[in-house]
This record gives sequence, C-alpha cells and structure tokens, in this order.
Amino acid sequence: MRHHAFMHPLDEAIALQIAAPNEFKVATHPAYANMVGPFGGTTAAQLLQSAMLHPDRLGEPVALTVNFAAPVADGDIRFLARPVRTNRSTQHWIIEAHQAEGVVGTATAVFAVRRETWSDVEAVMPTNTPVPDAVPRMAVKGMPAWPQRYDMRFVDGAFPTVFDEQEQTHSRSCLWVRDEPERAMDFASLAAMSDSFFPRIYIRRRRRALIGTVSLTTYFHADSALLAQVGSRHVLGVAKALNYRHGYFDQTGELWSPEGQLLASTHQLVYFKD
Amino acid sequence: MRHHAFMHPLDEAIALQIAAPNEFKVATHPAYANMVGPFGGTTAAQLLQSAMLHPDRLGEPVALTVNFAAPVADGDIRFLARPVRTNRSTQHWIIEAHQAEGVVGTATAVFAVRRETWSDVEAVMPTNTPVPDAVPRMAVKGMPAWPQRYDMRFVDGAFPTVFDEQEQTHSRSCLWVRDEPERAMDFASLAAMSDSFFPRIYIRRRRRALIGTVSLTTYFHADSALLAQVGSRHVLGVAKALNYRHGYFDQTGELWSPEGQLLASTHQLVYFKD
Repeated sequence: MRHHAFMHPLDEAIALQIAAPNEFKVATHPAYANMVGPFGGTTAAQLLQSAMLHPDRLGEPVALTVNFAAPVADGDIRFLARPVRTNRSTQHWIIEAHQAEGVVGTATAVFAVRRETWSDVEAVMPTNTPVPDAVPRMAVKGMPAWPQRYDMRFVDGAFPTVFDEQEQTHSRSCLWVRDEPERAMDFASLAAMSDSFFPRIYIRRRRRALIGTVSLTTYFHADSALLAQVGSRHVLGVAKALNYRHGYFDQTGELWSPEGQLLASTHQLVYFKD
Repeated sequence: MRHHAFMHPLDEAIALQIAAPNEFKVATHPAYANMVGPFGGTTAAQLLQSAMLHPDRLGEPVALTVNFAAPVADGDIRFLARPVRTNRSTQHWIIEAHQAEGVVGTATAVFAVRRETWSDVEAVMPTNTPVPDAVPRMAVKGMPAWPQRYDMRFVDGAFPTVFDEQEQTHSRSCLWVRDEPERAMDFASLAAMSDSFFPRIYIRRRRRALIGTVSLTTYFHADSALLAQVGSRHVLGVAKALNYRHGYFDQTGELWSPEGQLLASTHQLVYFKD
C-alpha cells in the first residue's frame, strides 16, 4: 500500500508539542473555527491531550471538566498540565490554557486504570432509531468550519433551518454523529464530540441568542478497547436542556455506541443573552 | 429576644480563616464525619467557601466541580483559592485542598453576576409527591454522623435497610431533604446537599460495595434571592444512575424548591469495587 500523507484535521489540532516540563504548545486549527475563535470541543480535546501526552500520565481519562474562561483567539495556545496527585490506580490533573492575554481556559481531569467489574447501563438508549444511512446528513453549507467536521444525521430535534421564533415545548435532540472525514474514535474525538451538541436554547426557542459554554463536564464510560470497537462509525447522540434561568442554562447529553454501550455522558452550563 | 450562642455545625465546618493571600484554613468537622474521614459534601462546601470568602470574589457561584483526589484525614485542611480569570460578569477559580500528606482535592468554580432573562424549567419535577410532613424521616441511628445532619424523607428509592442482594431494575430516588438542624439554605448548604444522594449502586444492587466519589459537578440555577425564598424548608431531591462500567458509575441529581424551581442540577462519577 502506498503511504498517504493525509492527516486528519483533529489529529493536526491535537498535535501538541512539549515546550517545557508540564508545558505544551499548539495553535488553534482553522478546520475547527467557530464564528469567532475555535470550537470549544477542539479546545477541550487539546486540554485533555496535554495530559494524554504527559510523560507521567497514568491510565485513561474517566472525567474531564473544562471551564471556558475567556474567548480563545485564533493562533498560538499553551497548556500547563500538572498531575497534582497520583495514586495507585487514579491520577488527578489541573490544566490551564494560556494565550498572550492570559488564562483562557482551565480544566481538571481524572485518569484511572480500570478493572473489570459488574457493569450495566441504566440510562435508556433511544429505540427504533433508523440506521445512519437512512437519515440525511445535516446541510452544513454556510455554517462555520466546525460543524463541517462532523457528519450529523438528525433523527429528532434538528438545528432549525430558520429562526422562526416558534418556541418548542422541549429541546431534545437525537442524532447520529461521527467525525468528518471519518476517523477512528479515541478520547480526543469523544471529548470534542461531547461539545458538539448545539446549544439547546436554539432548538427550544428557534431564535438568535448570544451564547457561550462556561463549563463542560464529560464522564468517559468507554475505555480505549471499547472505543476501538466503535472505530469510525456513527455514534448516537442525545441531548436535552434542564433549566434556563437568569442568563445561564444547562444541558446534558449522551453518546452511545451502535451496540448500545454508553460511551460518555456529558453536561454543560451555557451563558446566554436573549 | 435572647441571643442564642448556637452555631450550626455547617457554619462551623465552613468557618474558614484567612491564613495568607489566597490561602484559607479550617479543620474537618466531627458532626459531618463519614465512615472514614469527612463527608465529601462538606469538603465541597469548604472548597466553595474559600472562593466565597475571598476578597476578590465577583458575583455568585454558577458552576462547581470538585475532584476528590485522596482520602481526607480528620484534622486540619488548607485551601488555596486563586481567581485565575476575572471578566466583566464572570470569574473563574482554581482551588486546591491540602493536608499534611499532599493534595487531597481540587476544584474549579465559575462565579457570575446574573441578569434577568427569559427563564424556563425544562426538566420535570416529580408530581403527586406527598408533603414532607406526610413522609417519615429516614432512621439514622447507627449511621455515620453526616446523614444525621440531614432530615431525609424518602418518597421513593430509600437507602436499603438490609443488603439483601435483591438487584433492582433501576436506582431512582425521590426524597425531601433539609439540613438538620434546620438552616436557611445558601450556596454552601446547596453544594453539600448535592453530594447527599447516596451512591446509586447501593439502591440498585442492595449489596455492600467499596465506593468513593471521584468527581462532582454542580450547576447552581438558584441565586441567593431564590435561596432566601427556600429558607430552611425541605427541598425535593431526585437522583438516578446512568451507567456502571469497569469500576466507575455516574449518577445525576436535581434539587427542587417546594414551588418547583430547579435550584441545582448535579452529576458525579463514583469509583466502585464489587
């Protein structure tokens, strides 16, 4: 086989270089640009990757919380990743994202070496969902770069094509989603995908609003062996909002393997201005 | 009226003293002891309080993530609280909990000055719930100190009185809960109460397991004005697990005012050994 020079844009985006002990550098990636600055999911993946690439890393991520402290500017970004506590089977991280003007993001992560135990899914995966091939891909023409890096096929609760201000009774969505181009799933893609659910307020109110995620938490139920089984196939995403009040709302999401394993559950708090 | 010297144990537990710039000290409180060390909810309240008491604090908490990095020993505990980014209406914190042997916990918090906006609850509060007076209080005799600091009245999904190993189909609970003794609700009590839902694996499997919360995230939908309306009354708590796999499970909870306002939504990842 011929060697292909193609590198997936997500791999380019998370190709952090070690700049000093506990310090990594990279740049925001235009393929994941949002309306202003980069897609937060890519920043989350970069923050996580700084721990993944750290020489002292133990195990695999089980929990990640990212706080978006300030708008990230296009360009260079540095990550300070400190393993503040390493136990026998768990490791705790504090990570900061810096740009020229200061701290733009913070994160904490918990890594763990897992053991086999009794396991069970208590959340309920949507049933009677058509296969991905039976659902059209969301049109991404005219959208920022980042949604073009996902192949999203909405079964329910699509992003509105027009903001007709017809308020809905709820904000639930169900969609098949994968990286575009196809890419074998790993923790970086799962972390980024956890932020790929559109802000629920758009689905609910079908009107413009200024929004920004302030905090994003993802629990990784999958280990790398399970992610390898998923490969580059679509996974099923579901998302809903819980509460909107005085400038902030929260939403919660799940990412399911085609075989019905819950890969990740994810929660975020979003600023909004109406 | 006579002055009462009584101080609520939670107020004693969060009576942090400034030790140096960005540094606070206090001790674990025996009234909130768990089987080993203190109740994690009280530690979460202490971590939050270090930002609340900081002279540079802006606004009120909207998001808190606590990572329990190591068992907290009974005794002195120090908190390093840094406002790493202050914007016009938001502020981001990194907080560390230290004991003699090292870092025992980390936290990030987001504080904000809120504005009135369109607001709506999308989550569904349980209906047809009997009033607190109509539900007996959970017996706490023989339990560690911390559950005795709560008045819990289970409508559904009580903590099993015997571990009969009769596995249940789900782990959902619904209960009225308040501090015991009564105490007007504030962010400290709400943060602690977010960790007061018993680990779902006990409800689900009704058997012993070694467990420990590794990460706890709470979104505060209430501001102090709404908390003042709640006062010292019971609030309605609901909790359920999402997924158990290879040594970790996650659970999610909601705390509702009697009038149907969602005060907080809370999520945690728990280590377990079966």
